[in-house]
Amino acid sequence: MIAGSYQLLKKSTRCKARLGKVYTTRGIIDTPVFMPVGTQGSVKSVSTEQLKDAKAQIILANSYHIYLRPGLEIIKKAGGIQKFNSWNGPMLTDSGGFQIFSLNNFRKIKDDGVEFKSHIDGSKHFLSPEISMQIQKTIGADIIMCFDECTPYPATYDYAKNSMLLSLQWAKRCKEEFYKDEAHLTQALFGIIQGSVFEDLRKESALKMREIDFPGYAIGGVSVGESKEEMLKVVEATVPYLPEDKARYLMGVGMPEDIWESVERGIDMFDCVIPTRNGRNGQAFTSYGKLNIKNGEFKEDFTPLDSECDCQACRGYTKAYINHLFRSQEILALTLLSLHNIHFMIKLTDKIKKALESDTFFEAKKDFFEKYYSKKGAL
Amino acid sequence: MIAGSYQLLKKSTRCKARLGKVYTTRGIIDTPVFMPVGTQGSVKSVSTEQLKDAKAQIILANSYHIYLRPGLEIIKKAGGIQKFNSWNGPMLTDSGGFQIFSLNNFRKIKDDGVEFKSHIDGSKHFLSPEISMQIQKTIGADIIMCFDECTPYPATYDYAKNSMLLSLQWAKRCKEEFYKDEAHLTQALFGIIQGSVFEDLRKESALKMREIDFPGYAIGGVSVGESKEEMLKVVEATVPYLPEDKARYLMGVGMPEDIWESVERGIDMFDCVIPTRNGRNGQAFTSYGKLNIKNGEFKEDFTPLDSECDCQACRGYTKAYINHLFRSQEILALTLLSLHNIHFMIKLTDKIKKALESDTFFEAKKDFFEKYYSKKGAL
Repeated sequence: MIAGSYQLLKKSTRCKARLGKVYTTRGIIDTPVFMPVGTQGSVKSVSTEQLKDAKAQIILANSYHIYLRPGLEIIKKAGGIQKFNSWNGPMLTDSGGFQIFSLNNFRKIKDDGVEFKSHIDGSKHFLSPEISMQIQKTIGADIIMCFDECTPYPATYDYAKNSMLLSLQWAKRCKEEFYKDEAHLTQALFGIIQGSVFEDLRKESALKMREIDFPGYAIGGVSVGESKEEMLKVVEATVPYLPEDKARYLMGVGMPEDIWESVERGIDMFDCVIPTRNGRNGQAFTSYGKLNIKNGEFKEDFTPLDSECDCQACRGYTKAYINHLFRSQEILALTLLSLHNIHFMIKLTDKIKKALESDTFFEAKKDFFEKYYSKKGAL
Repeated sequence: MIAGSYQLLKKSTRCKARLGKVYTTRGIIDTPVFMPVGTQGSVKSVSTEQLKDAKAQIILANSYHIYLRPGLEIIKKAGGIQKFNSWNGPMLTDSGGFQIFSLNNFRKIKDDGVEFKSHIDGSKHFLSPEISMQIQKTIGADIIMCFDECTPYPATYDYAKNSMLLSLQWAKRCKEEFYKDEAHLTQALFGIIQGSVFEDLRKESALKMREIDFPGYAIGGVSVGESKEEMLKVVEATVPYLPEDKARYLMGVGMPEDIWESVERGIDMFDCVIPTRNGRNGQAFTSYGKLNIKNGEFKEDFTPLDSECDCQACRGYTKAYINHLFRSQEILALTLLSLHNIHFMIKLTDKIKKALESDTFFEAKKDFFEKYYSKKGAL
C-alpha cells in the first residue's frame, strides 16, 4: 500500500460524485469524508472519546500551531502527534502556509520561503518548503500537505499567476525534501492546486501538479472570501484535470450545502472549523436547518437539537437544557454543540455515501435540502 | 421505604466510621459518598456520560440558582430537575440559604424570611422556609434541605446562638410546609445543625433538631473560613447527638484529608466544589498528592495525571498533553481535570468503603496519606 492511496469504489452515473477509500498507516478512511479540525492538536471542547462516539475517521491539526506550541521537541518525545493527543487514528496536518499568509504585517515572502513572527510571543521564525516538510515529518500525521502560498482573495490575475507558479516551485521542493528518507512509507504528501478564481490558472496548476505527481491532491485558496458560486466554479475548473485514481481534498470547506455541491463535482475530502466554531456561538446544524440555541424560543423546548440525530448531545439533552447551559455560561454547552455539529457533518457524509452506493445521489440531495431549508427546526 | 432513610451496614470497631446506604426514589447511595456539585444543574464542564463513567451516585444542585435561572416554570414543565438536566439519578438541592446569606449588602433577614436581590439582574426576591420548601418541591430533588441561616464565621456567641435558634424555628416551619402534601413520599427533607464553633450550641441544635425529627441530618455552617481543627471539633461536638439510624451530611466539605478525618468521626455524606473549581485552575488531586498541571515540569511528562487512576482523563491523556491544552487555552483541559478530580474523590470514598468492609480503616488511612504526602506526584 502506498500511504494516502485512493481506491475508487463507485461513481454516480449522473454526476462526478464518487465513493472511495483512502488508505493511511493508521486506518482506512471512507470517502466522502468530513474531517474535524483540531488546530492545536485537539478538536476544540470535545474529547477523543466523544469524537470516536461521533464516528470521526480522521482529524486535522495545524503544523504552524503545533510547531510554535508545544514545539517539535515535545512531539518527537511523545512519539508523534497521534500519541501526543491520544487520538491514535489517522491525522492530517496542513503546512502552515494558510496561517502564515494570514499574518499580513508579520510575514515577508521570499523565493526560498517566508519569514514570520509568532502570533503567541512575536518571536521570529522562517519557514520554507524544506523546513515545512521536516516539521510535518516530525509531527507525523498520516497525510501532510505541501507548503504553498494560499493566494488571497481577491487577487489580480498577475498576482494569482505568480503565486500559483511559486507554489508549484515549492511543491517540487517539498516533494524532493519529503522523499529524501523513508517517511513516505508511512506518510503521504498531498499537492495543493492554486490559481485563485481564474480557470486557466487552476487548469495549469492541476496539470503541472500532476506532472510532479502526488498520491493525492487538494484544492487550496478557497474559502478565503470568494462567493459560493466562485468556489464551485474553481472546483469545476480543477477536477477534470485531476486523476481519477487519487483522492481530492477541498481545503477549508465547508457548510452542508458546500459538501453536497462539491461531492457532486467530484470532491472526496473536506475540513472546516465552522461546526465547532459556530457551535461555540450557539449555532446547531439540524436536519431541519440551522438554529441558534441561545434564542428565547428554545427556553421551553424539551426536544433534542435534532429529532433525527443520535449524537451524545441529542441522546441525552434537550434544547431547553442546552439553552439554560448557554445562558448560565456553562462550558458543557460548548462541548454539546460542538459534538452535535461534528456528528451532523459526519452523518451528512454517511447519507451521501449511502446514496452513492444505491446510485441515488440526486434523490438524497433533494430529500436533504427539502428538509434543511424547510426551517421547521427553527419554529 | 421512607425517602432518604439510612441503613447502617457496618461500623468500624476502632472509630465512628460507618458503612451504609441511603435510600432515595431514584436509587440507592452507598456511603460514605462524595457528591459532585452542579450549582446551576450541571456539574461544571463535565457531561452526564462522563459523570456516570466516574461512578458518581448523586449530584447536587443549588435551589437559589435554579430558582433564578432557568426558573421554576421551566423546571416544572421539564418534569423536575433530573429530567431537565438529564441526569435521571439521585439529586440533592440545598435550600439557597448559604447563597443568600453570602449576598451581604443584598439581603435583609427578617423573622419570617429573607429579602434579597438577584446576583444576575438585581431583581428583588423573598425567601422564607415555606417558599424554600415550595421551590425545592418543584425542583424535585430526592433529598432537599431545610432553609436556615448559615451562620457566618467568625460569629460572637450571642450571634451564633440567636442564629441557631432562628434556624431551629425555620426548620419547624420547613417540616410543617414540607409534609403538607405527598412530596415526602418521594423526597426527603434533611435538617441542618448550626451553632458555629460553639460546642454547646451544636449540641443544643442537634438535640432540638432530633426533636423535630428528620430522615437525615446535615452539619451546616462549616467550610466558611474556620480552621480544619475547628471544623473537626464541630463534627466531634455534633455527631454524638445525632441518631445512629440516620445519614449524616457534612455540607461543603471537603478535601481528601477532610473526608478521611470526618468519616472517622462518623460522617456519611460530603459535597464540595473544590474538585471542579480547582480543576479548572489546573490543580489535580493524585494518589501522590496535588499537582498543578500548568507547571513547566509537566511539559514533557508523558505519564497520566495519576498512575493509579482509571478515569477517562488518565486512561486517555498524558500530563504533557493536558499541560499543552491548558497553555493553549483549550476547553478540554478544564473538562479533563474536573473529571479526574471528581473521579479521585469518588475513588477515595470507594477506598474508605472497602476498608470499612474489612475493618481496616486506619490501615487504609495510613496507606493513603503515606502516598498522598510523599509528593512523589509533583516530582
